[in-house]
Amino acid sequence: MPARRRRRQRRMTGVLQKPWQIAERQFAPADILSADQVEELHRASLEIMQRTGIHFMGKRSRDFLAGQAGIEVDEAREIVRFDPELVERTVAQTPRSFRIHARNPEHDLIIDDRRLNYANVITPPYVTDLDGGKRNGSHAEMRDLLRLNQSLNAVNFVYGYPVEPQDLHPETRHLHGYFSHIELTDKVWRGYTMGDNRISDAIEMARIARGLTPEQLLEQPSFIANVTTNSPLRIDEPMGDGLMLMAEHNQPVSITSFAMAGAIAPITMAGAVAMQNAEILAAIVLNQLVRPGSPVVYGTFTTNVYMRTGAIAFGGPDPAISTLASGQLARRYGFPLKSAVTTGAKLLDAQAGYETQGGLWAAVASGASIVAHACGWMESGLTVSREKMIIDAEMVQMMNHINTPLVVDTDSIALDTIHEVGPGGQYFDCEHTMQRYDSEYYEPMVSDWESLENWEEKGGQSTGERANGIWKKLMEGYEQPPLDAAIREELETFVAQREEAILASL
Amino acid sequence: MPARRRRRQRRMTGVLQKPWQIAERQFAPADILSADQVEELHRASLEIMQRTGIHFMGKRSRDFLAGQAGIEVDEAREIVRFDPELVERTVAQTPRSFRIHARNPEHDLIIDDRRLNYANVITPPYVTDLDGGKRNGSHAEMRDLLRLNQSLNAVNFVYGYPVEPQDLHPETRHLHGYFSHIELTDKVWRGYTMGDNRISDAIEMARIARGLTPEQLLEQPSFIANVTTNSPLRIDEPMGDGLMLMAEHNQPVSITSFAMAGAIAPITMAGAVAMQNAEILAAIVLNQLVRPGSPVVYGTFTTNVYMRTGAIAFGGPDPAISTLASGQLARRYGFPLKSAVTTGAKLLDAQAGYETQGGLWAAVASGASIVAHACGWMESGLTVSREKMIIDAEMVQMMNHINTPLVVDTDSIALDTIHEVGPGGQYFDCEHTMQRYDSEYYEPMVSDWESLENWEEKGGQSTGERANGIWKKLMEGYEQPPLDAAIREELETFVAQREEAILASL
Repeated sequence: MPARRRRRQRRMTGVLQKPWQIAERQFAPADILSADQVEELHRASLEIMQRTGIHFMGKRSRDFLAGQAGIEVDEAREIVRFDPELVERTVAQTPRSFRIHARNPEHDLIIDDRRLNYANVITPPYVTDLDGGKRNGSHAEMRDLLRLNQSLNAVNFVYGYPVEPQDLHPETRHLHGYFSHIELTDKVWRGYTMGDNRISDAIEMARIARGLTPEQLLEQPSFIANVTTNSPLRIDEPMGDGLMLMAEHNQPVSITSFAMAGAIAPITMAGAVAMQNAEILAAIVLNQLVRPGSPVVYGTFTTNVYMRTGAIAFGGPDPAISTLASGQLARRYGFPLKSAVTTGAKLLDAQAGYETQGGLWAAVASGASIVAHACGWMESGLTVSREKMIIDAEMVQMMNHINTPLVVDTDSIALDTIHEVGPGGQYFDCEHTMQRYDSEYYEPMVSDWESLENWEEKGGQSTGERANGIWKKLMEGYEQPPLDAAIREELETFVAQREEAILASL
Repeated sequence: MPARRRRRQRRMTGVLQKPWQIAERQFAPADILSADQVEELHRASLEIMQRTGIHFMGKRSRDFLAGQAGIEVDEAREIVRFDPELVERTVAQTPRSFRIHARNPEHDLIIDDRRLNYANVITPPYVTDLDGGKRNGSHAEMRDLLRLNQSLNAVNFVYGYPVEPQDLHPETRHLHGYFSHIELTDKVWRGYTMGDNRISDAIEMARIARGLTPEQLLEQPSFIANVTTNSPLRIDEPMGDGLMLMAEHNQPVSITSFAMAGAIAPITMAGAVAMQNAEILAAIVLNQLVRPGSPVVYGTFTTNVYMRTGAIAFGGPDPAISTLASGQLARRYGFPLKSAVTTGAKLLDAQAGYETQGGLWAAVASGASIVAHACGWMESGLTVSREKMIIDAEMVQMMNHINTPLVVDTDSIALDTIHEVGPGGQYFDCEHTMQRYDSEYYEPMVSDWESLENWEEKGGQSTGERANGIWKKLMEGYEQPPLDAAIREELETFVAQREEAILASL
């Protein structure tokens, strides 16, 4: 990022945020399992897939799978059983790395085994901020949050509605949702696999938005979808259809198991992760049989139920363990990993900070290339907070700073300066310092590193209060990214026609 | 820890804290530097030590070093220069692992390359809590905090005064400080190297407290001291004397550089870490020449000055980078590592949470065996907060939970149960779950994982407010650890005699 652009941005918004970047993890992922343990989990997953099998609830998925060698379909019980050798061979075909094209090529993502792609919190029903308090999600609220996501460089892509637009008709919501994403941001966006319409409409709108032919779209992944398995061991009809349709168009799909240990998965993380792995492998087999080499992401969202309250232990250390273990499994197969950052905190307090930061470190240490829910998650995912968007973006920026290669050379070690300053001297005004004093270090966006006196003099604000000022500045400074008039018109026409057709069919 | 004891503790205090443990890191440390970069930093340090040298301000250190082959002392300028070959050979003699004996053997520490030993915040001038607000440190406040440190299992040892006892006479403060540590806790404590008296008194009191002969003390490290270099490239007189005295008695010393990049070290982390390394290696050479094999710890506290405000960037990502790089250097030599957890936060808000958690993850990822300032640090180290002691202890407990070996075997994977429950079933009431529902997962001490409704019904407390209730319960449940009457008397006599002698000499 050239210095000139960065300065301009600062002047425009008065916010010290870092330029948009895709950082690369600078350290090896953290292996908490031995190689033998990884193989034992792998073998357990294969046994689950072979013996108990996976319930594919959609007829289209079962019919397709029934024709494949190494797959046995029990049509009466809707159970699909997989030969282990077929599984191993099929899942080996996924790409290790792929690009997702954004409307603005500067915002393309690269999904692989070390790049860090952060996304916003996805589809909470409520939105909150310190001014307006908590309220229902709406299309207008969603559009405001899209503007904030576009302005916030730490958000590399918009991985779903930043708040549920509850006031839009459920059957046509996706059309306006997608359009708003395309119109208000130029970052990668997400299509929903909840029913066939939603994903085929996303494919078509992604194509139009980037001005591609269907053939070009096949070559250029242009959005992402997510398929969630229905634990335990179920893949429902729309998800199965989505897996197939995304592969047909060679568009990337993350496949996520939301296995809650103790409720819909074994209470042990070993059992929950083995089960999660069986579900995801089965989904990947379906996807890869449709189109070998179609881009997929291994998604983990395996948590546990906190038995004392019945709530999900979002933000706790057990989800961190499942993330780390899942990362090892994903690496075993060569899948890029998606993980998530969560918290159970209801306030912008210490818990919100330490749970989010702990989740972020666990995600990065697990080797995740997609870090979902990285900005804005509050209250077990029920609410997006505008202030927390800013606070979490600070954590992302700090993580990216740590994951910036450290230059170690003659110039950076500065031996000559060390000799010159000598014992007992100071470095404030030496040339080596002066050349670097405003570029060498991380400058915080919302953290306060003032003295107590200065902080008090400036009003003694909490982190949340400071974040409140920052999102306002970012939204004031928001600039809608240009959209070709012909493309806009084509999208608008598509939305109008599809809306009419869908409403007519109800 | 047997289940019975754990239950008893819960009943006594009503606090869901985890038993005392020394966890072992379950993943490899994070290498952010290439092997070549580590060697380049190492060579730079040797060049600094050879060419510019280290200012040893104490005559005793210089006189001792002057007699050694491979060392050149410029007595007029008080500069000591080191032959690289001597440095490499001498620092190779340090032990890779050692035990520090506590008064209670259950609280012994093992310092090595994977065990995690967490300590309290050290010597802030002020103490605060939500009831009493901020006030000066005093002996009474220190004693209260010692009780809390004893009660809090996440604190593995008491690495210095938990608050400065400002009302004690500076010259005899250490006598009463040490006595209070020994009397009120049975955990490992720290002696101060600020002047010869303080460390020789600590050695004698450590010996008495454990009922050892001087010969036995030589075999059994029984407390720890810390030596801080005086950056850039200076080791002052009391620190040099402390390095020698601790080695004479074979007691462990951590050697810490507080190199503030941009102020008293080069502004680049590469330069600051190379300089830090030269200082610590020089201190270790002195220590090891006195007694080869004497236990040492490589301590990093290298930070940077936030140039915009002149404050130290505690809690930021640059200190995390220096910690990770320092860990790689420590591993190169085989030294156990000490790192620290810091924050610039003034409130128990999100910043306090994310900076502390980020620092904790960086410390553990760096391979630190001693994690200093892990509980209670607030406001750039100026204040210890009782509530933050609890909040930070939760983070330590969660980190230890992540660093508990994951059992992956037939029983934990529960294949039979997975087959039995099958697709679409639930695991709430199956035998495998029932057997483990109150032991399998992390239970939080202060984090709230209730539903929003339940949390509101219980008063909608912030994390700090909940922590307030917890430290009170812990202090109510405090039990003073037994101390042999003869040992107590011997310590009291020692303190009285030394106090009289010191005051008479002023």
